[in-house]
Parts: sequence; C-alpha cells; structure tokens
Amino acid sequence: MASTAKIVVLVLDGLGGLPREEGGKTELETAFTPNLDALAAKGMVGLINPVGPGITPGSGPAHLALFGYDPVRYQIGRGVLEALGIGFDLKDRDVAARANFATVDAQGLVSDRRAGRLATEKCIELCGLLRRIKLEDVELFVEPVKEHRFVVVFRGSDLSDHLTESDPQKVGLPPGEVRATRPKSARTARIVNEFVRQAHEILANHHPANAVLLRGFAQHPKLPTIPEIYGLQAAAIAVYPMYRGLAKLAGMSILATGTTVADEFATLAEHYASYDYFFIHVKGTDTAGEDGDFARKVRVIEEVDAELPTLLQLNPDVVVVTGDHSTPALLRRDTQLPTLLKLNPDVVVVTGDHSTPALLRSHSWHPVPFLLSSRWCRADAAREFGETACASGSLGTFPAVNIMGLALANALRLTKFGA
Amino acid sequence: MASTAKIVVLVLDGLGGLPREEGGKTELETAFTPNLDALAAKGMVGLINPVGPGITPGSGPAHLALFGYDPVRYQIGRGVLEALGIGFDLKDRDVAARANFATVDAQGLVSDRRAGRLATEKCIELCGLLRRIKLEDVELFVEPVKEHRFVVVFRGSDLSDHLTESDPQKVGLPPGEVRATRPKSARTARIVNEFVRQAHEILANHHPANAVLLRGFAQHPKLPTIPEIYGLQAAAIAVYPMYRGLAKLAGMSILATGTTVADEFATLAEHYASYDYFFIHVKGTDTAGEDGDFARKVRVIEEVDAELPTLLQLNPDVVVVTGDHSTPALLRRDTQLPTLLKLNPDVVVVTGDHSTPALLRSHSWHPVPFLLSSRWCRADAAREFGETACASGSLGTFPAVNIMGLALANALRLTKFGA
Repeated sequence: MASTAKIVVLVLDGLGGLPREEGGKTELETAFTPNLDALAAKGMVGLINPVGPGITPGSGPAHLALFGYDPVRYQIGRGVLEALGIGFDLKDRDVAARANFATVDAQGLVSDRRAGRLATEKCIELCGLLRRIKLEDVELFVEPVKEHRFVVVFRGSDLSDHLTESDPQKVGLPPGEVRATRPKSARTARIVNEFVRQAHEILANHHPANAVLLRGFAQHPKLPTIPEIYGLQAAAIAVYPMYRGLAKLAGMSILATGTTVADEFATLAEHYASYDYFFIHVKGTDTAGEDGDFARKVRVIEEVDAELPTLLQLNPDVVVVTGDHSTPALLRRDTQLPTLLKLNPDVVVVTGDHSTPALLRSHSWHPVPFLLSSRWCRADAAREFGETACASGSLGTFPAVNIMGLALANALRLTKFGA
Repeated sequence: MASTAKIVVLVLDGLGGLPREEGGKTELETAFTPNLDALAAKGMVGLINPVGPGITPGSGPAHLALFGYDPVRYQIGRGVLEALGIGFDLKDRDVAARANFATVDAQGLVSDRRAGRLATEKCIELCGLLRRIKLEDVELFVEPVKEHRFVVVFRGSDLSDHLTESDPQKVGLPPGEVRATRPKSARTARIVNEFVRQAHEILANHHPANAVLLRGFAQHPKLPTIPEIYGLQAAAIAVYPMYRGLAKLAGMSILATGTTVADEFATLAEHYASYDYFFIHVKGTDTAGEDGDFARKVRVIEEVDAELPTLLQLNPDVVVVTGDHSTPALLRRDTQLPTLLKLNPDVVVVTGDHSTPALLRSHSWHPVPFLLSSRWCRADAAREFGETACASGSLGTFPAVNIMGLALANALRLTKFGA
C-alpha cells in the first residue's frame, strides 16, 4: 500500500435514463459531453447494478454500494437516513425515528396519516412545541423535514432501536403502542411511548395535526470505515446533507463547499493534496429526473462535463454537434486553462448511484453507466459515455459493490491475494 | 405493488442450440422468425445460465430458476419429479420413489438393472400386479412410466424421505436394504422394505423382471409460492405433465389446454383477464433436439413465431428470406388479425429452460437465448433473436434466477429497496 495514487469518484445522482420514445436517446446520450466521451475513449466502461438486477435502490443502499459495502448486508435504518438528510449530527448511541404529523378522529383512529400534508412552516412551528417535552434521563431532538414529516432523536445512555412502529400504516386504526422486540429495548420503548403521550397532549387542539406517528427507529450503523479497511484518507464533496451523512458513515471527511458543480470542483482542487480518495456528489441530475425534466437533466450533465477539464488533461476529438445539444463553447475551457492546473488523478470513476429516468420521474432499476479511466486500466473500444456504449463495454454489467476494488487496483493500491 | 401489469413468460424447452457445422447458424438463427426479431428489436436480449456456467440442467432445476428459485438451494427429489412427469397428483406428505424393474440371478445378485428394457405394455401389466401389495396404514400407488421405469408412491401419516436407495447402481450386487438416514424415517424404511419383499414374491416367476430397484425417495418440496412471494396470480399453460407439475409446485394455477402451440396461445387469450403472470411451455423444441432433428426444431420455433401476433402488436421489418427458411406466409397472420385481439402484455419474456442442441441430442450447458420486451426496458441494439445477437445483448450472460426480478421490475411491480 505504498502507492500514493489518487482516486476521484464522480457520482451524478440518478445518472441512468431512458429514451423519451422508442429508439431514441437517453438523457446522457443526448447531452453534449466531449470531455466525458474523451475520458470513455481513454478508459473502460460498463453498467452497474447498485443492489441487484431489477432492484430499484434508495439513496442509502445505492451509495453504500459505491463506497464498497454490500448494500444488503449493511442496511441503514430509515430514522438514521432521515436524520442524515437534514444534516443532523447523529451520535453513536442516538435512536432516530421518522415521524409524521397525522390526524386522529374522536375515537382515536387515524383518519389521515399526513395531516393533510400540512405546510412546512406549520411543521416547524409544531416541532418547536414538541421540544418542550421532558423525558427521564434522555435528551430529545425534534427536527422538521418537510410538510408533515419530521425527525425525532432520543439521546441517552443504554438506548436501543429494536422497537415496533407506532405508525399503523393505514387509516382506521389507532396509533400503535411501541413495543420492544428485544429485552434490551424495553426502557427505550417506555421512553418513546411517554414521548407520544405528551406529544398527543400538546397537539390535542392542533387539528388536523393532532397526533404523531413514528417509524423506522434506528441507531447509527457501525460500519467499518474506508480508512480502516483500505488505508485511504477519503473526503466527500456534496451539496446535500444526505450524501454528506452517508459519506461520514463510511469514514470520509466532509469538505465544506458551495452550491454549484463548479464550487464542488473548486473544493476538490483546493483540498487535492490532503486526501487519497474523493467522492464528489452531483444532485441536479436526480432532481431533474424526479421532476420528469429530460432537458434539464441533459443540461446538468453538460454542466458537469464542462467542469472536467479542471480535473483532467483531455483532448476531446473534434465533435460534430447535432440535435438539441448546448453550444460546443464548453470545449474551449480546456484549451484556456493552463495545464499546470490539471489535477490528473490516477484513477477517475464517473457513474451514478442509480438511474432516475425523466420518463419514470423516479428512481429505477435500470443499470447505471459506469466509466473508469487510469493509466493502468485496459481500455476498451468505447468512444463515448452513454447507456448503449456502456452496455457493450468491457466491464459488462456488474455489481456496484465491486467499484471500490476496481478503483484501488487501478491505483496500484492492492496487494496480491495468495502467494 | 398496485401495478396490474401483466407478464407473459414464453419458454421454448431446450431452445438454445449449436450450428451443424463450424461457422454455421443454430436452430434459432436458421428459423424464419420475423415476429421474434421484431420483439428483440423493441426489447433487450442476453443469455441465461440456468444453474451455472458449464452446468447442464435437468428440467426441474431449469424451470425452478425460471420461476425465481435458486435451483441449488431448492432441489426437487427424483421421485417427486418422476411423479410430476406422469401427472400424478402428489399430496404433501407422500413419499415418492423412482423405480426400475430389474433382473436378479439365482444368487440374488442384480444381473440387469433394466430387466432388458422391457416393453412399456409389460411395465403396465406388472405395475397392476404390484398394486395388490398391502402395507400397514399406508396407501400404495404403483404407476408405470416407460419401459422398465415406474413410480411408487407411499401415502400415510408420518412418512419421511430420509432413506438410502435399494438400487445398488451396478450389476453383481444384491438390491440394498433401505435404511433410514434420520431416526424419523425408521418406520418408512420398514414399510418400503416390506414393499420390496412382497414385490419380489409377486415377481418371482416374471423373469427377466423378477426384482424392483428403488431410488430417489422424495417428498413434495415446500416451496414458498409465487402468489405468496410476489403477490402475483400466476397461471401455467403446458401440454406435458412434468411442466404442469413444476408450475404447481411454484403455486401456479394449471390451465387446461390442447396439444398444439396454437391451443396454448388460445388458452392464454381465453384466461388473459384472470391472471397477472403466465408461463407458457412449448415442448417440441426440446423433443426435436433430443431426437437430433435440426430441421424439426427449426420448424417448431417457426410455429411459435407464427403464433406471436396473437399476443402482440408487432411490426416486423421487411425481411429478406434466405437459406432454408420456411415461407414468409407466416407474416400475413399479423395483418389478418384485428388489432383488438392482441393481448399486448406489459412484459414479454421469451427464453428456454436450457439448451438442447440437435447436434448433441441432449440437454447441454450452453447459455440460453433470452429476450425481454416492455415499455420500460432500456432497448439495446439487438435486431434479431438468436444466440449470436443475444451474446452481444445489453443483459450479458446472467443467472436465470434473476429473470423473475427483471420481469417484475419492468412491470413496475417492485418497490424501492431502502430509502
């Protein structure tokens, strides 16, 4: 492990897509990406299955797989993910839960699990009221998320997350009593039920938000970290809290950055000397996909492509511009930047955590385009970065959990197995 | 799981093949299949390994894999398979065995394990004699299969299949005493040995069929069923009992049908509204392969292709007819049928359970052509359905056990894994 080679993993969230009409091009194939295409020509491509064939992954398992964790073995509870999503600084023994404001009727039966999707401002106000609740030997955090959704975190010694949910998951039933599913969670169950009791007293006159429903009780998963496993100093550059949180679980340092893709690349350049492994997360592709906005997803991909010359000395082929591409002005950046500014990491990976086709407006199961370039990779025939080219790539379709090993190998950071 | 999308899985038994001469075409590639080719152009293709690379599967494991069961984890005993093969209505606690009529010499040593491959008519007659055997508290079924082969089923309470075999598997040894390999099978062992003792008394004067050899003792495997696991109402359309039996083990309803491929498609149309998932089994491809009849296997594939317009609205490209194809008259069916008759299922899978190249006259290990078409699949570059096209398909070569997940995903019938 004497290698000092650097690895940059660039993740475009929800990168994989679908053509709008049969026989058409996907978002990535439509985008004008001379730099990504040049990188594909130097490297090798394939498709990744984040969790497994046909499985649509959530952000949690999808990122764990990119970081080298088997996403079926290492599962992160929903309460923890929700806390990470709002940037809550979760401690080791905290128990976190996803919570809803809900409506119960005069008989105490749930009539609306989302309290009419109340306004986020109202959620913030009601969370403020619930913070008044006092619990024996336990510190309480009540944090708004969005509309009817909030997070509850219980902090204290000897708490445990083996608990049933209070959310009955359908209307016409009362909120459930929380029960311990293992003896060591008995005290935590009492504390949670006391929280719910006091919450219902406080909310009694706040119809339609006159009840709370809790689910996904979870504690910080104890993952072996990237520095421990691989001896890598790893850093994460992400605008959104969820992805910083996931990277932190994996043992990465979280680098402060701005709000744009350009900010993220600038942050990379600034800290380039201090780490071996960088995870850069771009959110805009997923958001555009979820909004069903094919053209915006194309533009975000082009924006990322335009930043690549910061990272790499690339010599894109002359590209004939066709269709609904943006202008090829992007190309000029490369020639304008002095070569000394190129970081030229030893291994560059470009991929997504999952597919989010604008056509489906949601995460999907489709395998995700993957690209790895390094001096030591065995380049394949791919000359562009897109779903069709990746489907013929030399890497084939493979589990995302293998990416970390491939990246380390191409950084000459792995020793021989066996003698 | 709110989706009501329908899935049709069309299995051409032993579909995969080999060219007759180096550089030639396989059976599937030789067949004139404008409809399958049009379907391949709309969908994505690949090759499946039913059990694993290099493994030649029997019909049992090959079909379990197609139905989503790990064929190594879920194994079906030979006695059960033999009973399914003759359409015997096996009950939950029955113990079934494969049996041979055999010849023993004056010293009681086996001299011919197959009693000179006696005529099937003789087998039927001798099975009739063995039905006279009376056993304590156990109902006995003795059912002829073919030539020297028959099935014995023991029905009673508290029977168990952990038993050694009476078949010594070679000549010059006596039939073995059946022993229990677990204590709970002790009584069953006594019953089976009593059956053998009485059988040998009855057969004493029926040389060369003067003994029986029993092996493959097995009980009905308790598989979790497709309705239980996937919430699918599943139906099977198959002419041969073995495949109906396998489908029944997986929890499918068995639909009565006729004897031809056209009958099977008519049965599909008739019951289309009542189920979510249809397994259609075509036997002729395998039989032709086992007979070494390349041309007949080609014709069966063409017969299936000609039925596809019942299922789907396809617009085959204009096809140049070359080589030893049948006439392109098949194409005209599509334009003759009113569009209203098209079923147009949301997901169509066409594949085989294993390869049976006419060249080898037997099941083989070769990966099997696979095709999946759906509005939500990411179509690949394949423009025809054949071994060579499938080898370059975007699905690559993958385990058959993944098919069910892929089909469900493309029917939008799966929820997200993790958050």
